[in-house]
Order: sequence, then structure tokens, then C-alpha cells
Amino acid sequence: MCQLLGMNCATPTDITFSFSGFAERGGGTDHHGDGWGIGFFEDRACRLFIDHQPAAHSPLAQMLKHYPIHSRNVIAHIRKATFGDTRLENCHPFLRELWGRHWLFAHNGHLENYAPALTGMYQPVGSTDSELAFCALLEGLRNRFGTHTPSIEDVFDALAELAPPVCAHGTFNFLLSNGQALFVYATTRLQYVVREWPFGKARLVDTEMDIDFSRHTKPGDRVAVIATEPLTCDEDWTALACGELVCFRNGEPVLRRLTLSAEQQAGVRARAITAADL
Amino acid sequence: MCQLLGMNCATPTDITFSFSGFAERGGGTDHHGDGWGIGFFEDRACRLFIDHQPAAHSPLAQMLKHYPIHSRNVIAHIRKATFGDTRLENCHPFLRELWGRHWLFAHNGHLENYAPALTGMYQPVGSTDSELAFCALLEGLRNRFGTHTPSIEDVFDALAELAPPVCAHGTFNFLLSNGQALFVYATTRLQYVVREWPFGKARLVDTEMDIDFSRHTKPGDRVAVIATEPLTCDEDWTALACGELVCFRNGEPVLRRLTLSAEQQAGVRARAITAADL
Repeated sequence: MCQLLGMNCATPTDITFSFSGFAERGGGTDHHGDGWGIGFFEDRACRLFIDHQPAAHSPLAQMLKHYPIHSRNVIAHIRKATFGDTRLENCHPFLRELWGRHWLFAHNGHLENYAPALTGMYQPVGSTDSELAFCALLEGLRNRFGTHTPSIEDVFDALAELAPPVCAHGTFNFLLSNGQALFVYATTRLQYVVREWPFGKARLVDTEMDIDFSRHTKPGDRVAVIATEPLTCDEDWTALACGELVCFRNGEPVLRRLTLSAEQQAGVRARAITAADL
Repeated sequence: MCQLLGMNCATPTDITFSFSGFAERGGGTDHHGDGWGIGFFEDRACRLFIDHQPAAHSPLAQMLKHYPIHSRNVIAHIRKATFGDTRLENCHPFLRELWGRHWLFAHNGHLENYAPALTGMYQPVGSTDSELAFCALLEGLRNRFGTHTPSIEDVFDALAELAPPVCAHGTFNFLLSNGQALFVYATTRLQYVVREWPFGKARLVDTEMDIDFSRHTKPGDRVAVIATEPLTCDEDWTALACGELVCFRNGEPVLRRLTLSAEQQAGVRARAITAADL
């Protein structure tokens, strides 16, 4: 299974601490050695770094651990290939433009018999089910709103309708951002923690590293970190429910909705247990 | 004026040598200190590195000078802001997806009163005339071929029709690639050199650096390097004509066409002399 990491903040923040632990999972403490990627938004545009080398040994990942890039929305991914081989074009996060903004998407899970009818407006560059789902979500958004930019609330409502049909094909945990908000959807495993004033200390699970956030922060700062599994061993992480969609803005969850019925949730769990990616 | 650098090769090649000289022009030997970017294709997808810090001092540029990424198509750009301020979203090269491939575009020049009628299929993320021209070219390609992928020859023919109207607005030197070919268009300044067996030595203009290519190459290698100004002082660089479109594949020019009449060329030169970007 792949690992996801997201960050949404009230003020531009660097993700060096969380990324250091997360990168260890790519070929270090875990077996997700089939490439990785991270994208940092700066307003409407993002910097995207992708590499098909394991994150634990990548020179690019080494540089990023020591080069603090400040951002309010970050999405990172470490890949364990299920569908699609280890090629650059299959590394998440995937990037597209919609309504004059970059959009980033990373997915964890495995979709079976997933072949949405697309017009070709967005076409996958690689061979992953994940990028196909991203293209389908963007085409779905475009079909609803045309070339007119909707509000974040309208995007949230649309995603709450577009995501559930995909869950019928398998595990569909994803992070999606346009630089204004971070949309998080879970069917099996995603957890988050909100760090705010007064900030405390935290210790990484994956590597020998502690940080005292109170030494690096001011009262207005607030940071939400979202990950497949908790990155720290001494903070309270909250698990998303099966089929839950959450919109993070300014470092906190501002919209949340359960999009699957009890019956649909049972179906998702049954598929997840048998899927190769758990 | 901005500076462009392109590379098209028969076999995956690293651009470390040329990039070392080129990066010096961003705040070092020249005054193009408003950000920079470089994109490396690996088949259908590309790695894109952009930074709004001057290339001569950017930690990312430092890393790339020592991290050889092998590619057959590379586009790089150093920016001297004319339109649009120094923000990440205004850094070239720009990236979009078309027909399931990444497309990269970098432009040198300044377009005045340029406001193409676009449907919103591709929208600029930043505020540059360059990204707007890229969106217009892609929309033009899409309008001609729909969702059906055309041949490189067909793309060449389409670009030969799409580029000239833009020249009526100012200097339009650009590099465009989809990973299969590198399309180069010039109205004022672009030069290229083809290096092939038996390879020789070269000395950079911008920094104290020599290389003996014969020590790093094999008989099947061939590399075309395209730049605003020659990067080396001891090789024969060929200047593109005003309004010339050239398609490079496998490290050599394979298609070339003069797209402007003598009258149009005179108009382009007259505008270039008065434009702020020369």
C-alpha cells in the first residue's frame, strides 16, 4: 500500500519535520520503495518534485529535508506499485490545471475494473488507476461548473457526489488540493492531527527526531497534518471514517461529510480486506 | 530579455555541462535574476523544477548541477520579468497535459496587446503573456485534432500556422516539447549546435569550464543544444532565421520551415527593436 502525507496551514509553513519521518517509509522503515513525490503550493501554482528512486535514498529527498519550502498546502506520496510499473509518469502526486489553478492529487488504494467513460478532456499520462481517477474527478468538476470557477463549498459538494461511485471499485483514500483548500477522502486509512497555539513537542515514529514546535511558531499559526498512519507517537491523531470527505482550510477541518451509506461502507471494507494493496 | 536553453538527444543525456553555464546567466554573468526553471522528459512525463530565486544562487540549481538527470528532451528558462511579477506561477517552463502526454513550453520575448479568444480549455495560472500564448497554442492544436493524437509532422504543420499570428504582437522565440520532439521557433534570437561522433571539446562562455565530450560519449550519441546565445566559444552555432520553425528529433533538425513572409519579418524586426525586452 502507498502512503499519503498532506499538510494544510493557516500561514506558510515548512514540512521538513514531517517529511523527514515520512521519507523514511520509502525504502527505509517500510517497503514503499517504488518512487515518491511531493508538491508545494504557492498560491495558485505549485512546485512538484517527483522521483522514481526510493525516497529514503533519493538525492532530491535529501535536498528537501534540508531546504525548507514554505507552503500552506502540501501533498506527498510514497508509492508501492500495484498497477503500473516504476516509471516517472506513475509517480504521485499528479498535476493538472483547472480554472487557472494547479490541482494536485495523490491516491492510496487499488481500484479494480475501473474504466470511467471520459471525453479526453483530461487523459492519464501514466498507467495508474489513480491518475485515471484524478482525470475523472476533474472532468466531473468541469462538467458541473464549466469554465466558471465555483466556490470551495461547491467543489466540496461536487466531490461528495463524485467520490462514492469510485469506491465501488476498491480502496479510495485521496488528497486533492488547488492551493486554496485540501480535500481529504478516506475509505480505509487516513488520520490527521491539528497543531495550534500553544504548540507542544512531538517525536517521530520513523526516525530519531524530536521537535518543540513552540520554539518555531507564533500564536496565529495552525497546521493540520494528514497521513496514512500517524507520523508521531505522542500526539492525538483522529481517524477519518469510511467514506468521509473533509475539507481543510487555514489548518483545520472546516467541512466534513459522510458520503457512504452503512451498506456501502460494509462493501468497501469487504473489498479492502481482499484487495492486494492492504 | 529572458534566456532559453533546450536539448534534444538521440540517447538519454545529462545536461549538467550546458546547464552550469546557463545557470550563471541567472544573476551571475547576466541580469536574468527573476526566477528560472528546467523540465526533463522521461518518455511521456517530465520532471519540472521551478524556482523564483535567481538560478545562480538557488539551492535547487546547485543540486541539479551535480545530479545528472538523463533525458532526451530538456527545456530550461531564466527569467527577466517584463510582464507579471516574480512569482512561482510566472516561472517558465509551463506544463500542461495534452493527448496523455506532458507538454512543456518556454518563451523569450514580450507580446503586446495579445489577447487571444480562448474557450477556457487551458487557462493561464500566472499573469505572463508567455503562458497565455502556450494556452492558445494548445487550444489551437486541440481544435485541429480533437482527442485524436496527431503525428509529429501534423503537429509541426499546425504550429507553422499557429505561431505566425502571435508574432504580430512582438518577439516570439519559444521551445515546446511533448517528450517525442523539440519544436523551436524564433523571431529574433535562437541558435543551435549539433554534437555528434566523433565528439570534440568545448569551453563554456559563462564560467571556467571545459569538457571533452569524446570521453563521455559513444558512436550512437547525438545531441542538439539550442540557446538564446551560444553557450560555448569554440563550436559552430547556427542561428535560426526570423520566423523559422524547426523540429528536432534524435539530436538533429528533421523538419524546418520559414513561416513568415519578408514583409512579416520586417514587421517583427521593427517591433523587436522598440520592444522593452531586447
